[in-house]
Amino acid sequence: MSRNYCLIMAGGSGTRFWPRSRVAKPKQYLSLFGDQSLIQESVQRFANFIPEDCIYVVSAKSQKEVLESQTTNLPKQNMIYEPVGKNTLPAIGLAALFIAEKDPEGILIVSPSDHLIQNFELFRQTIESAVLIADKKDGIVTIGITPKFPATGYGYVQTAGEIQIGQAIKSFAVNQFVEKPNVEVATGYLKDGGFFWNSGIFIFKVSVFLESVQKYAPELYADLMQIKEHIGTDTYEEAVDRIYNEVKSISIDYGILEKASNVFLVQGDFVWNDLGSWEEVYKYDKKDENQNAQVGEVVFLDSKNSYVYAPNSLVAVVGLDDVIVVQEGDTILVCKRDRAEDIKAVVGEITKRKLDQYL
Amino acid sequence: MSRNYCLIMAGGSGTRFWPRSRVAKPKQYLSLFGDQSLIQESVQRFANFIPEDCIYVVSAKSQKEVLESQTTNLPKQNMIYEPVGKNTLPAIGLAALFIAEKDPEGILIVSPSDHLIQNFELFRQTIESAVLIADKKDGIVTIGITPKFPATGYGYVQTAGEIQIGQAIKSFAVNQFVEKPNVEVATGYLKDGGFFWNSGIFIFKVSVFLESVQKYAPELYADLMQIKEHIGTDTYEEAVDRIYNEVKSISIDYGILEKASNVFLVQGDFVWNDLGSWEEVYKYDKKDENQNAQVGEVVFLDSKNSYVYAPNSLVAVVGLDDVIVVQEGDTILVCKRDRAEDIKAVVGEITKRKLDQYL
Repeated sequence: MSRNYCLIMAGGSGTRFWPRSRVAKPKQYLSLFGDQSLIQESVQRFANFIPEDCIYVVSAKSQKEVLESQTTNLPKQNMIYEPVGKNTLPAIGLAALFIAEKDPEGILIVSPSDHLIQNFELFRQTIESAVLIADKKDGIVTIGITPKFPATGYGYVQTAGEIQIGQAIKSFAVNQFVEKPNVEVATGYLKDGGFFWNSGIFIFKVSVFLESVQKYAPELYADLMQIKEHIGTDTYEEAVDRIYNEVKSISIDYGILEKASNVFLVQGDFVWNDLGSWEEVYKYDKKDENQNAQVGEVVFLDSKNSYVYAPNSLVAVVGLDDVIVVQEGDTILVCKRDRAEDIKAVVGEITKRKLDQYL
Repeated sequence: MSRNYCLIMAGGSGTRFWPRSRVAKPKQYLSLFGDQSLIQESVQRFANFIPEDCIYVVSAKSQKEVLESQTTNLPKQNMIYEPVGKNTLPAIGLAALFIAEKDPEGILIVSPSDHLIQNFELFRQTIESAVLIADKKDGIVTIGITPKFPATGYGYVQTAGEIQIGQAIKSFAVNQFVEKPNVEVATGYLKDGGFFWNSGIFIFKVSVFLESVQKYAPELYADLMQIKEHIGTDTYEEAVDRIYNEVKSISIDYGILEKASNVFLVQGDFVWNDLGSWEEVYKYDKKDENQNAQVGEVVFLDSKNSYVYAPNSLVAVVGLDDVIVVQEGDTILVCKRDRAEDIKAVVGEITKRKLDQYL
């Protein structure tokens, strides 16, 4: 069996966790639960069954400092930096070049860095089933999360027939990938069955991936091959800056998965959440008897179902239910829980007022 | 006509404006509107028509530093310090000793330091009418605020017949002082007429006041006369510490006003508020088109009728109406407006948790 590698995608930048997530410290570097940041939890999850020198991270150059400070257990040469963000397919492609240099037949497990995953043993079994399929069937394998409700915030994967090649976890051929649906369509998916949430976790042989890039994204492939020439030489930095800058932004879903035929899905029944807003953090955090969750010293007085994050302050919440209060430095968010999605608009307003020091 | 003196009572300590009011900085020292603190506004109000060397302040020894830093325009010897708080009658008595030394027939205007007063010209005319009555009738005169609604947070004064001795503002003999009523009783007062809110502003000749103390609070009078012996000597500090410590706590209302017969009331129609909670500050502060008031940089997103104080932070309020958000150092209050009175309970809880650094 081939050797396994892990590639953690950590280039994202976002505003959903403002004021904690800042331009210089996106979500994956935040400790939303306990002491470990999301990327540290992601690395640890894989380090339990993949040697650390086989764990790679692809990120943005601008995040080098915070990334390296949080991944001191990984070799520095396993940190691959995009000079500029080009979405997932070029990012995975760039990292795949380095892994292919080392082990072209290695199996690569690509994972987001900023999701919540619980039930480690089930997660590992699921990944191992995917690895088996990637190895035995030269497949492109995705983990599909069994949907719990008609979510409109996730892409879906529609499965075809079940497959069985000795793997532990239920797996399927894939019929199609579908974009984020509206609530009626999503409700239909759950009723029809055979639909899964797209987890953003993909497993394939490095060689199978690069062949797919060549087949479905030949321009990107040509660019990657150019970059490959410079790996290990003095000209690499200059070359990647120049060539990558011209690369077209495209997701792996759109660029390969929706087009390829050898795509499979392993059913993910572990606890999974993409942590899209403070509301999700509240949902998964520990709560007291009034369903309040807190980080820091908080006095709740006739307040329930609320979330407070202010590790260095005392916060008093009086007579308010269903609120989110977050303090980070000189910024404070006070938000009704069902409006957590609107933080983007707050960030937009701050940008409009040119108060960049708060972003 | 006698000379006028002003005595500003600044010894209060309170928790209603937590987290801005702290043990070391009670309400009177806060700038709730604009740049000036409430005590600075109070001093300024009188300094418009009373020479600064005739303006006295009585306060607690523990407030000496903050008081002197905010009243640099007043002579230091006009600052009278209680070694320990004993309510208004002993405090006024102690200060009256010093004023009597200078001018026993002077007229003393006693005023709280922490109230909101607007319409300065009407205020001055009201005080001048009271001074006239205090002078001509050797009266104990109080300013009664024409009630706007059946408040349950104020004491009331019931008037008897109107008097006219040439003063500009409508004035009355006083029938009785009554404690804070419940809402039914207060509604009755407004319906019956002749009731006014007790403003805590009193005007009398120093001599008339001291005679009243002698008559209605003879023990206190004896103690004050003992202290008087030490004024201007090296033994004053020791004597006041020792004697004042034994004095009984009592308010001027209960100790004198409710008992004396020569009590008068001048009708106060200027804007007056005792600023009993953040709700009152919100009510009197400037508001934008969504009825939001703010100090500091605030993003209100679908939020109205709210108050934010955070001069050194950016605060975003999303999807919440009728809230109060106050940040002071490492403390944050987030409170439904109609629960502003419950801040005392928050302070109680912080005390219970022994987190004195936040008080």
